[in-house]
Amino acid sequence: FRGLTDSGMEVIVAPRPGFSTASAHLGLRFGSVHTRFLDDSGEEVSVPDGSAHYLEHKLFEGKEEKVFDRFGRLGAQFNGGTGFHTTTYYFSTSRNFTESLDVLLDFVLNPLITEERVEKERGIIEQEVRMYEDDPGFRSHFLLHRALYSNLRLRVSPGGRVSDVKAITAADIQACYDAFYSPSSLCLVVSGDLNPDEIFEQAQLLTPAESGAMGQFLPVDEPEVVAEPWLEEEFPLARSRTLIGWRESVSPGTGELGLRRRLAAHFALDMLFGLSGRSHADLYDRGVVDDSFGHHYSDGPDHGYAAVVGSPENPESFVREIKNAATTFLARGVKGKNLERLKRAALGGLAGSLESPSALASALLGSRLRDEDPFAARSLISTVTCEEVDACARELLDPARSAVAVLRPSL
Amino acid sequence: FRGLTDSGMEVIVAPRPGFSTASAHLGLRFGSVHTRFLDDSGEEVSVPDGSAHYLEHKLFEGKEEKVFDRFGRLGAQFNGGTGFHTTTYYFSTSRNFTESLDVLLDFVLNPLITEERVEKERGIIEQEVRMYEDDPGFRSHFLLHRALYSNLRLRVSPGGRVSDVKAITAADIQACYDAFYSPSSLCLVVSGDLNPDEIFEQAQLLTPAESGAMGQFLPVDEPEVVAEPWLEEEFPLARSRTLIGWRESVSPGTGELGLRRRLAAHFALDMLFGLSGRSHADLYDRGVVDDSFGHHYSDGPDHGYAAVVGSPENPESFVREIKNAATTFLARGVKGKNLERLKRAALGGLAGSLESPSALASALLGSRLRDEDPFAARSLISTVTCEEVDACARELLDPARSAVAVLRPSL
Repeated sequence: FRGLTDSGMEVIVAPRPGFSTASAHLGLRFGSVHTRFLDDSGEEVSVPDGSAHYLEHKLFEGKEEKVFDRFGRLGAQFNGGTGFHTTTYYFSTSRNFTESLDVLLDFVLNPLITEERVEKERGIIEQEVRMYEDDPGFRSHFLLHRALYSNLRLRVSPGGRVSDVKAITAADIQACYDAFYSPSSLCLVVSGDLNPDEIFEQAQLLTPAESGAMGQFLPVDEPEVVAEPWLEEEFPLARSRTLIGWRESVSPGTGELGLRRRLAAHFALDMLFGLSGRSHADLYDRGVVDDSFGHHYSDGPDHGYAAVVGSPENPESFVREIKNAATTFLARGVKGKNLERLKRAALGGLAGSLESPSALASALLGSRLRDEDPFAARSLISTVTCEEVDACARELLDPARSAVAVLRPSL
Repeated sequence: FRGLTDSGMEVIVAPRPGFSTASAHLGLRFGSVHTRFLDDSGEEVSVPDGSAHYLEHKLFEGKEEKVFDRFGRLGAQFNGGTGFHTTTYYFSTSRNFTESLDVLLDFVLNPLITEERVEKERGIIEQEVRMYEDDPGFRSHFLLHRALYSNLRLRVSPGGRVSDVKAITAADIQACYDAFYSPSSLCLVVSGDLNPDEIFEQAQLLTPAESGAMGQFLPVDEPEVVAEPWLEEEFPLARSRTLIGWRESVSPGTGELGLRRRLAAHFALDMLFGLSGRSHADLYDRGVVDDSFGHHYSDGPDHGYAAVVGSPENPESFVREIKNAATTFLARGVKGKNLERLKRAALGGLAGSLESPSALASALLGSRLRDEDPFAARSLISTVTCEEVDACARELLDPARSAVAVLRPSL
């Protein structure tokens, strides 16, 4: 079931008969990278990094009672999260679903943001940001982002830096809320043993009759080349943490186009760096990579990049070896047999991963916030061709668009 | 640093200079499987499954204020968990560490358990248990435990069943607390940029001068053979979730002996089912396994078993194929070259995984609660021999001690 409330909120209900847990995920296309925008009256607004995350925390405070306490009394497990391009709020529960959905829509649509309340939260958020910065995985991830991108706000974690958190004002938060927390930018996905019509009616009742004007993101001017080919930081580690990233020159886009690109990139990287591939076996045998090695592809409306991570004693030789492996892989080309195997495995993994109402609702919301058809992946996978994966690998693994981030042991 | 307070609580401090976050993990050797014991006066006590978990929740309530609120005001992130054989409580924070450690020891050592307070929590815990039961991974895991074991309380999840939660009384919870929450059974591990002497002094001050008598677990009589060779349940899934388990006839033991066995078992299973092994490549090529396939080894003072999990369309042929792969693997024997590669990778993974104070404290506490030397793994890994892995594989993968658990699609 899929519909729009009068105010323009998208509502999707994915029935899962037989489950006693039901789950609701509410999200919007506003995240940490959106720090410059036109507000609903067309004025240009600029807020510090971390404002979207601060706003998320602020909403948790509720108008009269903390949101966690409200859900807790109903027996629902609740949380939220701020990403680069989206913010989400979600709960799962085996009883009081209707009441919990009331709370979810109420606290997001009816906040109370005051100077005093914003001040109260500052210490806690600073502390959260400091704790993230102590995590080597987190730190090296954003070091790579700063190596890859000159201006995109991906350079900074969704929470912002401590100095950002200190600078954020109630006015900044209110500006973000007014510009983007409008029913027409919200998407609600519900899954469980539920009646879609009842859910839609409830959503209709809980949202205002119409949606106000919306703000508009201002584009960030980002060069097509990496910011720094090699960036280092010291950190109290026993072994280095070394990342290599290869950025796309421009974003692969959203919708079906973006999804296709993401699939092709995943297949290419799995062949090259995946545990069952020939290159990986070779790197593993020679001790270049160990169990700490991993790879991923990340993309959004404004970016796309591939990355590998390892904990080598010697970052320089690790980088050389990995880049050589990429060159050898490109010279050999993509094998049809390998691709078929990866496609089968991906379809199998997909089938097994969306069983519970919570996992399903989360995946559906993620697709919608990227403007993808939630069920497109399944049918697209089989249509991806060898030539496509090969072309994607060649474009993506261009050494001229690669950068290295190293956390070097300071011990 | 390692010492005992006057009351017998073990205190370990692992300094991590340069980190702004510090972490404290407090644990004890009492978990969900300990439902029959002699109390401190030698009386036999029997409590419902789930009592240890209920007690954990009860402690969270605090004497006057909820523990989550106390930590929240200090800016510390707190949680706890009940396992089969242990219960742990832990926090991480970048400020107010001393105050947070006060709270941690205070709420664990000074609880208030009353009929009324126990009643209040019942609905929430029931709800938590119901939500777990909706998770196919969780359900199939305990289905396998029931197939493998006739009497061990591993048959039931740490939270118990809904009927257990309904049956637990304040007296049950108090009996567990009195028998096992004694300073001499507690272990505190702290990690961060901290002064060990100050931490020890604080722990000394916060614990009572002496420890009362301790309860004693009553052994469970468990046959050396599996309970049910094939167990099925229906569940609303698109594809089956199928697990195969191979149990040890008796527990591999704790301390260095248990650790050695665990290492050998891990290496054997990695060779057979690991993504870089020959058998896995073959199973993957032929479409028997896909990205949903995994394997693990689980052990404790009372048990040990190996398991694989997959989402096959046809559970029967999946089980046949996996068992054939095991037979072929045993016939071929363990290759020295493969073992060396796995050892190197394991050492590399180990080095990369214990960097943050929180990860380090958690790992150290885990080792201590299993009566292992926290740093033994590193040196033991290199001493594991081919013969040992081969013998372990032969013993462990005995078809006579295997059982299958299938969640079959009811859709």
